[in-house]
Amino acid sequence: MFNAILQDIVKQSSGGIGAVLMGYDGIPVEQYLEPVEGLDFQMLSVEYANVIRDVKKTVELLDTGMMEEVSIKTERFYVIIRALTDDYFLALTLDRNGNFGKGRYLMMRETPKLLEALS
Amino acid sequence: MFNAILQDIVKQSSGGIGAVLMGYDGIPVEQYLEPVEGLDFQMLSVEYANVIRDVKKTVELLDTGMMEEVSIKTERFYVIIRALTDDYFLALTLDRNGNFGKGRYLMMRETPKLLEALS
Repeated sequence: MFNAILQDIVKQSSGGIGAVLMGYDGIPVEQYLEPVEGLDFQMLSVEYANVIRDVKKTVELLDTGMMEEVSIKTERFYVIIRALTDDYFLALTLDRNGNFGKGRYLMMRETPKLLEALS
Repeated sequence: MFNAILQDIVKQSSGGIGAVLMGYDGIPVEQYLEPVEGLDFQMLSVEYANVIRDVKKTVELLDTGMMEEVSIKTERFYVIIRALTDDYFLALTLDRNGNFGKGRYLMMRETPKLLEALS
């Protein structure tokens, strides 16, 4: 169930590399990954879980409303992270030549299905 | 010099609240701020400096190329952070009804001027 949704997001977003449904504790529920040389997706996911947990804490501390989305652009990748529930988030990694806007749109479109499957 | 650039970015991006040129140590070089009720911009900036420092460390650790941009969307605000040098970054806070794309564009457009003024 989760895997099919994650695969859809990666396949349909041009330049998609991997998608992971993960807990803020860094433990993945499910992931879908295209093979990419020189990228330890597992390590990337866990490290980004740490970052996103910090952002979540900061946002709550500042009382600026719930965190909804975080995106990180580096020389090689885009990482888009979308908060799903208090415990889980969805992260998508795209190649820098990928379509950031489409990736974001797909994550938004699939959110209700993921929430339903999570509940 | 810095202040005029920051003011331009805030005024021209629809929904702009504040812009800050800051070191990764959380110490601001300069900032421009529109008065907003119930927002401690100073605290927000320092907290985001912590976050962005963590993201920078993570990106370097993962060897995914230099960090270029981080954006955070909460229920109330957009925060866009753009790496300028190894020591400094530019952060723009927008109202959620503001124009995220325009804010990002203005930050990109003004980057060369800020870099020149920093050097």
